[in-house]
Amino acid sequence: MNNLTFDSRKQMDFIAIGRLCIDLNANEINRPMEETVTFTKYVGGSPANITIGMSRLGMKTGFIGRVADDQMGRFIVGYLEKNQIDTTSVITDKSGSVTGLAFTEIKSPADCSILMYRDNAADLKLEPRDVSEEYIKNAKALLISGTALAKSPSREAVFLALDYARKHDVAVFFDLDYRPYTWTSPEETAVYYNLAAEKCDVIIGTREEFDRMECFEQNTDHDDYFTAKKWFGYHAKIVVIKHGKDGSIAYTKEGESFKGTTFPANVIKTFGAGDSYAAGFIYGLMQGWEISRSMEYGAAAASIVISSHSCSDAMPTVEQIDSYIQKCKNGEFVAK
Amino acid sequence: MNNLTFDSRKQMDFIAIGRLCIDLNANEINRPMEETVTFTKYVGGSPANITIGMSRLGMKTGFIGRVADDQMGRFIVGYLEKNQIDTTSVITDKSGSVTGLAFTEIKSPADCSILMYRDNAADLKLEPRDVSEEYIKNAKALLISGTALAKSPSREAVFLALDYARKHDVAVFFDLDYRPYTWTSPEETAVYYNLAAEKCDVIIGTREEFDRMECFEQNTDHDDYFTAKKWFGYHAKIVVIKHGKDGSIAYTKEGESFKGTTFPANVIKTFGAGDSYAAGFIYGLMQGWEISRSMEYGAAAASIVISSHSCSDAMPTVEQIDSYIQKCKNGEFVAK
Amino acid sequence: MNNLTFDSRKQMDFIAIGRLCIDLNANEINRPMEETVTFTKYVGGSPANITIGMSRLGMKTGFIGRVADDQMGRFIVGYLEKNQIDTTSVITDKSGSVTGLAFTEIKSPADCSILMYRDNAADLKLEPRDVSEEYIKNAKALLISGTALAKSPSREAVFLALDYARKHDVAVFFDLDYRPYTWTSPEETAVYYNLAAEKCDVIIGTREEFDRMECFEQNTDHDDYFTAKKWFGYHAKIVVIKHGKDGSIAYTKEGESFKGTTFPANVIKTFGAGDSYAAGFIYGLMQGWEISRSMEYGAAAASIVISSHSCSDAMPTVEQIDSYIQKCKNGEFVAK
Amino acid sequence: MNNLTFDSRKQMDFIAIGRLCIDLNANEINRPMEETVTFTKYVGGSPANITIGMSRLGMKTGFIGRVADDQMGRFIVGYLEKNQIDTTSVITDKSGSVTGLAFTEIKSPADCSILMYRDNAADLKLEPRDVSEEYIKNAKALLISGTALAKSPSREAVFLALDYARKHDVAVFFDLDYRPYTWTSPEETAVYYNLAAEKCDVIIGTREEFDRMECFEQNTDHDDYFTAKKWFGYHAKIVVIKHGKDGSIAYTKEGESFKGTTFPANVIKTFGAGDSYAAGFIYGLMQGWEISRSMEYGAAAASIVISSHSCSDAMPTVEQIDSYIQKCKNGEFVAK
Repeated sequence: MNNLTFDSRKQMDFIAIGRLCIDLNANEINRPMEETVTFTKYVGGSPANITIGMSRLGMKTGFIGRVADDQMGRFIVGYLEKNQIDTTSVITDKSGSVTGLAFTEIKSPADCSILMYRDNAADLKLEPRDVSEEYIKNAKALLISGTALAKSPSREAVFLALDYARKHDVAVFFDLDYRPYTWTSPEETAVYYNLAAEKCDVIIGTREEFDRMECFEQNTDHDDYFTAKKWFGYHAKIVVIKHGKDGSIAYTKEGESFKGTTFPANVIKTFGAGDSYAAGFIYGLMQGWEISRSMEYGAAAASIVISSHSCSDAMPTVEQIDSYIQKCKNGEFVAK
Repeated sequence: MNNLTFDSRKQMDFIAIGRLCIDLNANEINRPMEETVTFTKYVGGSPANITIGMSRLGMKTGFIGRVADDQMGRFIVGYLEKNQIDTTSVITDKSGSVTGLAFTEIKSPADCSILMYRDNAADLKLEPRDVSEEYIKNAKALLISGTALAKSPSREAVFLALDYARKHDVAVFFDLDYRPYTWTSPEETAVYYNLAAEKCDVIIGTREEFDRMECFEQNTDHDDYFTAKKWFGYHAKIVVIKHGKDGSIAYTKEGESFKGTTFPANVIKTFGAGDSYAAGFIYGLMQGWEISRSMEYGAAAASIVISSHSCSDAMPTVEQIDSYIQKCKNGEFVAK
Repeated sequence: MNNLTFDSRKQMDFIAIGRLCIDLNANEINRPMEETVTFTKYVGGSPANITIGMSRLGMKTGFIGRVADDQMGRFIVGYLEKNQIDTTSVITDKSGSVTGLAFTEIKSPADCSILMYRDNAADLKLEPRDVSEEYIKNAKALLISGTALAKSPSREAVFLALDYARKHDVAVFFDLDYRPYTWTSPEETAVYYNLAAEKCDVIIGTREEFDRMECFEQNTDHDDYFTAKKWFGYHAKIVVIKHGKDGSIAYTKEGESFKGTTFPANVIKTFGAGDSYAAGFIYGLMQGWEISRSMEYGAAAASIVISSHSCSDAMPTVEQIDSYIQKCKNGEFVAK
Repeated sequence: MNNLTFDSRKQMDFIAIGRLCIDLNANEINRPMEETVTFTKYVGGSPANITIGMSRLGMKTGFIGRVADDQMGRFIVGYLEKNQIDTTSVITDKSGSVTGLAFTEIKSPADCSILMYRDNAADLKLEPRDVSEEYIKNAKALLISGTALAKSPSREAVFLALDYARKHDVAVFFDLDYRPYTWTSPEETAVYYNLAAEKCDVIIGTREEFDRMECFEQNTDHDDYFTAKKWFGYHAKIVVIKHGKDGSIAYTKEGESFKGTTFPANVIKTFGAGDSYAAGFIYGLMQGWEISRSMEYGAAAASIVISSHSCSDAMPTVEQIDSYIQKCKNGEFVAK
């Protein structure tokens, strides 16, 4: 039991809106990218990864977004479909845009960075007219991601989706997913993040992301409860603030708070931790589980993904997560 | 008595945010602009005009905006100061912007048009950091205008001002003031107008402006009550829908409605009618008058301004409006 | 006799390409623009003024350019036609551009400045496809102006016009007319001015304008002969370097040089001096006059224009210039 | 012997200006890119490839260009240096640009295409001030490439380099290298290609590229001699028009023409054929060889490169080319 409700009569479990892009992951790792010779191509983008994760967990999912009219765009759509994600709201952009790219550099498991290509990216060309009221109405939950707010017309498309979601009782999850590219100023970022957060049921972000949203406020101590409380004055029911390896904390509108656990992992890279966490956590909440159990499920999913080479492709199934948790609890799994 | 409250302890009565520009009014009128030879320069821009109107009516006023770093910008600041408007929040833009211009063409009293210069306009360079929380906190009322939402960073500055106003119990008036320039698409316009309107106490616009805001809704009959009702679900207490010569209608959150009257006028041009109406109406509400009396005051102010050559410069004083109403009621005033 | 030849079989005497705009001249002069209340509207833009000047002097003229699709654009076309200038190559731009504006400020006859509106200006939307090879082929002379090189696609249109002119033995005059607006960097300016100058027969500019072109060279003494000589290695036959009140100097490919005279004037403002000078000078050259007589004619035209309120509208006829020169020589004219 | 002269006192043999980018070549070939999983990273860009080719052939080379301030940019500089190319004029761009990318798709040896990333590309940020007169003066030959003309400020940097080259007797090679990205219109392309070609000694391009340059001319038969002849009226001494598998034809100012041969190859992909041809051909000319022998050398180099996976990395040495020609002439080499 948790404080969210999902309308069981709706056909679709979960849809996300926003970024669809390509990850090019260094094959030769533990070195600077200057010395990387080959790269492997995966579907990427935080909302894409979370949706793939939800689909792997057996949920009925769909996506609202734009892809470039090229080989990369077609690869993305094909991959989503192979993963049973509905793509009827994935539009092919004809404006000459390109697919956003993320080259990953893995110098060491603890020292990872990303080289982004976000100029003229297809996903940011999403338009309000691409957002179908009917499509959103038919979903139990909608996930929005901060990167889709970074630029017009994608920004307006997200606000319209939020409006439809609120109108039709669709639970809204906001994965802050702040990326410094594309945004013009810290103030611009804070204004739109705040306008969007006002309309969401569950807000998930790192402490640093919430700090960024508070650029017009006085939370000099970076107090998590101060942060969470604000949103309960709007529509939020759960606010999760992540502190990396120190775990996360969830607050509820009803005044509870839950400290999250972490699981051991043989870390290859840190990418994908947040997306797999979100998938596991949201999955749990949609099953009606307690918040703490949902957080545990997210943490286990995250440990699985950071032990793999990819983000999207490594998203685990229910069986994988259950078995991972079991092994950890039995002491069978020991991180090297 | 009306349903608004204003905090009498605050020092400033009324501040506006947004467009400050220059009107260049044709001196040779009743002909196409091609045949106009000379133009007279006035301060213009809907929120500027309303603020000048409020100041003429004896209110303590101020303005938040940006002007170009040139002769036109300095003329605007000088004119505001001459009209007792506080300009401490009027910033001189150093980016090389220019002052927005509006050349007016008066082919006949009923056939007026405007030739706008809005590229690289200084007023749209207003930034969130220009908006002082303290300045807004100290005002009883804030007026925002739709044109300031048309472009970043002015758009974000307005959303921040709205946030501060709600936080500090400042009554917010929204003059829709839709101008087709600068906006990218009808959907973009609707999204931001709606996001702003959610945060306002009083919303004033023409039927056509409200239609534009409803581009994602089904109000096929253009029903005024349908329009007004939506906003009472947010923060609105009064919604005024203007129907040009057919007068206006005001709805309250409490379920009342008021039909506005009009006064005779020897019309020179229709420009400035809306701004003077807003000034008179808001003045009345801030005096604590009944809504219907406030509407009458606005209508009288409008009749005075459309009988003059300018907008800003013709904004009437209390004495002028009172005397005009008196004359009309006595039958002394007969429109030619 | 001079060193230029014009093909007498061609139907059109003189065509210009480039800027067509509006001057808004302060009516209340000898004060800062902040205190100016009314403005008078004139056609402006250096190549427009020169063409009007040439037409007043009885030449068969035409223009290649773009005007905005509004009242200002229609006023410009109407004025050109009233002045017997062929407008078949004046295109109405449909992209939503505006007419460039120049507000003049006349603080004193010696202290004049201009406030320019050049954002989204129609004249800079001129495209190569607007340039008719036939139209250029049929002209004895073509004048290009530096402002038209400031931005694409107008820049490319000018280079195409130059190409057609060289191909069909049209004498090319280059009025440097440097304006700091629109250009991105000093290097950009120098590169395109030099590329254009290589293809011209007569180059006319101020010392400061030539300095700007020499940003990649070592003419530290600002030596006029150094400046002129370079262009004789390309197609130039005459180079005129203007030194304001100190008169101008003309060099020929053949090695001659001519010092220009000036005439007295009751100066109202300095605007238009260069354009009227160019008209008078080019007219003289096209009559086959000696260079020194042509320079004198230009100087007299300039004195007439700076004694008037406008630029374009004050362009003198042959009778006016002849009479002015006569009066000056007779000592009848005494500048106050 | 050929009709070019190179100043033997100059220290540097060959420098190029323009595009430095990254090729990401599909490892799994003979399929659509949608099915490609991994990519190998190489330095790319036509002038970069040619310079690498010249360096492999033993010439003293250098490069003028901009690279992004990231891992890709550093990889490029490192690779050039490893190939003995002087990088003192390779600037690291600090504007937040990215490295241009070219993903190659090899559906079959005859059906190859490229997916380009050219938005905000570092190489197009090259500025006139990056071009050192001294650096160009010290080179025997300069190569420019059409892509560097596609956008400001790189376009102006190339024109300045051309100016310095002509001033200091540096032989200029123009590899047309037309790419449809970045250019705004066919007319824009033609205007700048023509302006640049006027200043070059040797112009090398495909028939299609020359057609593009002739958009304002009447060469309806696509006649090669018509094409070449025009440039002999400027500075050109040799014009090479390439007809793909049908070989190429070279014209000289002196009226000769030479038909090029081709060599057999086990083609993997067609990319890099032009660049390796240029390197071999220019190398031959700089050795003082006959034009026909130089063309043969270029053709052999091309056959070697199209039989390999990469462009830059496969550029052959003198020994490799000599041996390849020998084998072909001996009949030892038989294309499969």
